[in-house]
Amino acid sequence: MLALYIGNKNYSSWSMRPWVLMRQAGITFEEIKVRFDSFSLQSGFKQRLHTVSPVGRVPVLIDGDLAIWDSLAIAEYLAEQYPDKQLWPRLAPDRARARSICAEMHSGFTELRTHCPMNVEAHLPAAGAQIWSEQPGVRDDVQRLIDMWSALLNSHGGTLLFGHFTIADAYFAPVCLRLATYDLPVPPQIEAYVKRIQSLPSVQEWVQDAMAEQDFIDFEEPYRERR
Amino acid sequence: MLALYIGNKNYSSWSMRPWVLMRQAGITFEEIKVRFDSFSLQSGFKQRLHTVSPVGRVPVLIDGDLAIWDSLAIAEYLAEQYPDKQLWPRLAPDRARARSICAEMHSGFTELRTHCPMNVEAHLPAAGAQIWSEQPGVRDDVQRLIDMWSALLNSHGGTLLFGHFTIADAYFAPVCLRLATYDLPVPPQIEAYVKRIQSLPSVQEWVQDAMAEQDFIDFEEPYRERR
Ligand SMILES: N[C@@H](CCC(=O)N[C@@H](CS)C(=O)NCC(=O)O)C(=O)O
Ligand SMILES: N[C@@H](CCC(=O)N[C@@H](CS)C(=O)NCC(=O)O)C(=O)O
Repeated sequence: MLALYIGNKNYSSWSMRPWVLMRQAGITFEEIKVRFDSFSLQSGFKQRLHTVSPVGRVPVLIDGDLAIWDSLAIAEYLAEQYPDKQLWPRLAPDRARARSICAEMHSGFTELRTHCPMNVEAHLPAAGAQIWSEQPGVRDDVQRLIDMWSALLNSHGGTLLFGHFTIADAYFAPVCLRLATYDLPVPPQIEAYVKRIQSLPSVQEWVQDAMAEQDFIDFEEPYRERR
Repeated sequence: MLALYIGNKNYSSWSMRPWVLMRQAGITFEEIKVRFDSFSLQSGFKQRLHTVSPVGRVPVLIDGDLAIWDSLAIAEYLAEQYPDKQLWPRLAPDRARARSICAEMHSGFTELRTHCPMNVEAHLPAAGAQIWSEQPGVRDDVQRLIDMWSALLNSHGGTLLFGHFTIADAYFAPVCLRLATYDLPVPPQIEAYVKRIQSLPSVQEWVQDAMAEQDFIDFEEPYRERR
């Protein structure tokens, strides 16, 4: 059976992507959660991760004696292994577009990622308002999301980015949660997309698990000292 | 015909990846070079790029009315369009490993990328020695490259990362040039791999073009004020 190493569900946005992808697509896997004690070389997290991956980051997918690290490589592997699940869009131009935006997410949106770290159980509208007024880079990142998602929703029926659920929706699911946590202002069509992602069964399950963790990791919470 | 938007060949490591991939694989394309005047919104570079891609970065691949941005999405598109070229390794586990390391490169090696920007025409051993002694993160990144490449070379015949030329070699080609530019210390097996990459016809052509540019862009050269 496949096994997926992940971090704390409340904080680990990269772990969430392949987890939601597999759960939503009905791909069975064992979840192996490794707590974020710290990211120093001596941490329990790193020691454990280094037994399965040279990079020492989550997510890692294990298939027999093969270890695949990085959320994007995992997504490509699953798309190849489960062609009937149509994890990428079926048409080549849509697939190219989906890969462009996932790669863009993978190495970009650094302002949003830095200033608004994922924190599933929290609701931080005041921190969000302050970030919004002080960080033009965050506003630019959100504007890019609005433009990207609007264009795709308008050309694919208005529900999910490419009509049916794909890797692209899984890839932007943690971003949807951030927009909600920090209450960042978006137009109604985008708000509706965020709500639609939040109501996917796989996302709801992830969120419930995150809520149940009750594990405050201070280095993941730059904007407050306790919950 | 395919068209590839790229930046200055002397500096643009992300542009180099799909360019070398296509050239080495014998895929015909038109090259469209857009000079790095600056990356401000008003720059000629941004104005030009924004006519073809919402992200405004190079590389961008144009196929008819389809624009594909990001080097990784471009590589995946080409691998799908030219299956006979075997741009990814043929075996699924090798392919998964190749994608893992390309994704790792895509969002990682930030210390090496920050401190040792690509500069094809330069030879900067003194800057390299200083960076090497002052930046533990650069030493860690280089150690990871050594471990990664040694393991792959040892298990695939010792010439290229997966035996024959693949996207993975194209992806690490700019890294090979950086190791050479800054004279960073690596063991003989890795030095031999770097030399092998430097002697690929596609890489030689890129390097010659970069040499011919003679275009000093100050914001790309943090360590000196003139050539
Ligand atoms: N590009 C990687 C990013 C993985 C990543 O940075 N994961 C974080 C947790 S969300 C991690 O393991 N951090 C540990 C560290 O940085 O040392 C991917 O897409 O999988
Ligand atoms: N993740 C992108 C990175 C592309 C990138 O950052 N390109 C640089 C030139 S090497 C660029 O266009 N920079 C312009 C800017 O940052 O505004 C890819 O893999 O294609």
